[in-house]
Amino acid sequence: MNGAHAIIDTLTGCGVEVCFANPGTSEMQLVAAIDRQDGMRAILCLFEGVVTGAADGYGRMADKPAATLLHLGPGIGNGLANLHNARRARTPVLNLVGEHATDHLHHDAPLTSDTAAVARPMSDWLRLSRSARDLAQAGAEAYAAAMTYPGRIATVIVPADHAWTDGAAPAGPPALPVPPRSPRPVIGQAADALRATSGPCCLFLGGRALREDTLVQAGRIAAATGARLVCETFPARQARGAGRVAVEKLPYFGEQAEAFLRQFDTILFCGAEPPVSFFAYPGKPGWLSPPQAQLIRLAGPAEDVHAALADLATALDAPADPALVQPPGEHPPLEEGPLTPASLAAILAGLIPENAIISDEAVTAGVALQAMTVGARPHEWLSLTGGSIGQGLPVAVGAAVACPDRKVIALQADGSGMYTNQALWTMAREGLDIVTIILNNGSYAILNIELARVGVRDPGPKALSMLDLTRPAINWAQLSESLGVPATRVATTGAFREALAHSLATGGPRLIEALL
Amino acid sequence: MNGAHAIIDTLTGCGVEVCFANPGTSEMQLVAAIDRQDGMRAILCLFEGVVTGAADGYGRMADKPAATLLHLGPGIGNGLANLHNARRARTPVLNLVGEHATDHLHHDAPLTSDTAAVARPMSDWLRLSRSARDLAQAGAEAYAAAMTYPGRIATVIVPADHAWTDGAAPAGPPALPVPPRSPRPVIGQAADALRATSGPCCLFLGGRALREDTLVQAGRIAAATGARLVCETFPARQARGAGRVAVEKLPYFGEQAEAFLRQFDTILFCGAEPPVSFFAYPGKPGWLSPPQAQLIRLAGPAEDVHAALADLATALDAPADPALVQPPGEHPPLEEGPLTPASLAAILAGLIPENAIISDEAVTAGVALQAMTVGARPHEWLSLTGGSIGQGLPVAVGAAVACPDRKVIALQADGSGMYTNQALWTMAREGLDIVTIILNNGSYAILNIELARVGVRDPGPKALSMLDLTRPAINWAQLSESLGVPATRVATTGAFREALAHSLATGGPRLIEALL
Repeated sequence: MNGAHAIIDTLTGCGVEVCFANPGTSEMQLVAAIDRQDGMRAILCLFEGVVTGAADGYGRMADKPAATLLHLGPGIGNGLANLHNARRARTPVLNLVGEHATDHLHHDAPLTSDTAAVARPMSDWLRLSRSARDLAQAGAEAYAAAMTYPGRIATVIVPADHAWTDGAAPAGPPALPVPPRSPRPVIGQAADALRATSGPCCLFLGGRALREDTLVQAGRIAAATGARLVCETFPARQARGAGRVAVEKLPYFGEQAEAFLRQFDTILFCGAEPPVSFFAYPGKPGWLSPPQAQLIRLAGPAEDVHAALADLATALDAPADPALVQPPGEHPPLEEGPLTPASLAAILAGLIPENAIISDEAVTAGVALQAMTVGARPHEWLSLTGGSIGQGLPVAVGAAVACPDRKVIALQADGSGMYTNQALWTMAREGLDIVTIILNNGSYAILNIELARVGVRDPGPKALSMLDLTRPAINWAQLSESLGVPATRVATTGAFREALAHSLATGGPRLIEALL
Repeated sequence: MNGAHAIIDTLTGCGVEVCFANPGTSEMQLVAAIDRQDGMRAILCLFEGVVTGAADGYGRMADKPAATLLHLGPGIGNGLANLHNARRARTPVLNLVGEHATDHLHHDAPLTSDTAAVARPMSDWLRLSRSARDLAQAGAEAYAAAMTYPGRIATVIVPADHAWTDGAAPAGPPALPVPPRSPRPVIGQAADALRATSGPCCLFLGGRALREDTLVQAGRIAAATGARLVCETFPARQARGAGRVAVEKLPYFGEQAEAFLRQFDTILFCGAEPPVSFFAYPGKPGWLSPPQAQLIRLAGPAEDVHAALADLATALDAPADPALVQPPGEHPPLEEGPLTPASLAAILAGLIPENAIISDEAVTAGVALQAMTVGARPHEWLSLTGGSIGQGLPVAVGAAVACPDRKVIALQADGSGMYTNQALWTMAREGLDIVTIILNNGSYAILNIELARVGVRDPGPKALSMLDLTRPAINWAQLSESLGVPATRVATTGAFREALAHSLATGGPRLIEALL
């Protein structure tokens, strides 16, 4: 057995079932190994940013890694931006990056680069295979690294000769590390603080704290103490909708976030670090928590936040039933008229199917979308965790692969969608059950806001042209059809409602271009 | 004056006229500075791989750098693959990469990454600005680094607070390094070798040796000695066509290249390193030069190869007129029939306009295209230097910006074109005079060959599906129209000839999808 077969068999033995791939010559042995391994599905993506973004979406929903298959330094280079987002989401991802054969590297052939150096900035864990026999072991270690709670980016660099040389054997599944639990004194301190506080307090929730069953624990604490529940602005995966414990969202802009948090005397951080502003601005705050408040780290993002919240609820003798359970929203019929972010959000809120997954890269339109859908049917919301645009469509791909029985809705801004439009092709090839809604406002709208916020006054035509996407206007419906996804363009509330209802009722990928 | 204005004024003072940009919030001050500097044109690209590939195409034709404007670590990450190609082309490129304000970095905000570590693997030179006042000096040093003969990738990391803080001033243009010349004894040794050799010899040409005037020197040496002229497989920029000194091309596959070079007793390397095989294969050679031959390094890629060849011609008392001048090709009318790579190449050969620039990412179809066009009207040919696909359309963008009076033809394979299809939008926005020909064969055809070459026997359906682009078939004409570039699909010789003639006669961007 050659090294390629040994590592692929090792990974399937660990439970890795999917490989998102954009292979080249140096990965052909790995392609052949996947070909012969029935336990691994291979999904071709036409650009590496789709590969890594899909692995992120898959990992967020499956809570285990997909493998990626990437071609040398430039291949992982193209995948870095969405690995950055995956890393910020703390998603388990397992990258297999092909490398030239070891005795070819010194030739400095045209495609040679320092592959490890390219991969390292966005890898939590990185390992260069040492031999054909070592390759399977590297794969097993990578699986354990990726599965380190709640998830990490693990990268194995696979020299071609290690893949093609015989004499290798699969490695057994590794022991997985157990997530650390918050120590008892921390639970006690948190309980004391909530009991003693005279002013408003909140649980600041992030990461795994936003899963349905963990939110129930937070809701129990709210029932016992009156604490507010607030979450990070861009959670990796949030359970929400009618019947779920509702959470307030921290505003995006730093000064608004700081003003919001200033009302609290006590903040418990649960699965999240204390929030900071996304960007720096002249004279505006970076650190957002109020200086006079009591800040308690109940559980960090890499600690078992479900256990911490359950322990805290027990310490507080909290009732079994959570507070803050979201009632179903009212969705009165809208007046007919031109489509706006608000009317689009209102229509969407009424039509989100039970158990849907939302991949949200709506950027400026996202605020209305989130606000209007709090009382929709229960669903999960995946946000742009790392701020590197081009995540939305690939994450939708990965989520649909992980959850074939659930409807996926991609809320996609036009500018950011362009970075990884190739994802539409994979949706078509795999027949994924995804409805993509392009929020086409013809601009990098967020940057029009940011231009003023960083202090640029009276921008001229050259500056404004850098934020404008109307010359030429992109026809997203046509783009979608060219890549095999049926599409329609709408500009009115009635047309959007009809298109969305039809798309949701139909299986397979569909795209609706909403002209805003 | 703030740091942003100071560095932009510094760069325009150096002669930098163009900035290919995909900015975000942290680059808004640089956008504002470019806005107010009439000497710098700003060109928006909708993905960073287009930005860096366009800068490559620009630099190859202008022999000076364009600036790029990129957003933080993920932004330069998305640009790495085409920086890899630019680095292998030894193109001058000057990257400006925005970074968070220095006092924001410690907050580890969502978009924070180790920007320098991301940039470094594909940068020949990298500098982090130290202050608002230092930023302009960093820009001047970057210009000198980029202009180090024949060209280098220089990267300046620009913290947002250095850009927005006042008290800065532009720096003067730096002294540029002079390219080193081959020492007289090397010229003498080369002349002696060419005079003494009894068997066949060749000049192996690459880099700047393939410019028109330098080829004349090589042709004079051929006239004096009978030496053959051979060039690297993927030159950055080669002058060719009728009336130019003709050069044989080293075959792509290593065993063919090795067999080709085996005929030579003496090889002089001129502007090129000794060639090596692109990939390693079990049991096949990596080093391609014959072991018994005399190998002489007349000038490396970073030495003044024009001077070296002129000095060698003088030492050999070479005649003024070069040998091997290419006669015009015959372009007899073709029989009507389905389009093939060969018939497409034959039609193209007859229609290439005088002084055209060809951006070639045709991959498998490229061999026929190059062979058939040797006697076309004089033109320049830009190849995929670093093997990282997704270069062709962006390089065409940059070449068209650098040379607005010349027609650019992009020969683009379908699979590789998908990596950076966003380049079409910039062609439309800027009205660039580019005819893109998509060679649509519905597959990663090269990988079907490579699969066998690396020893994979009887690939199954899963492996073959990784190389197939027909499920779904991509409609490139529709994709092009969606991004604002008028397009047509053709499948016969007659339709292709008519479409090409029409497109070449029309100004502005056009796309022809050739179904092969």
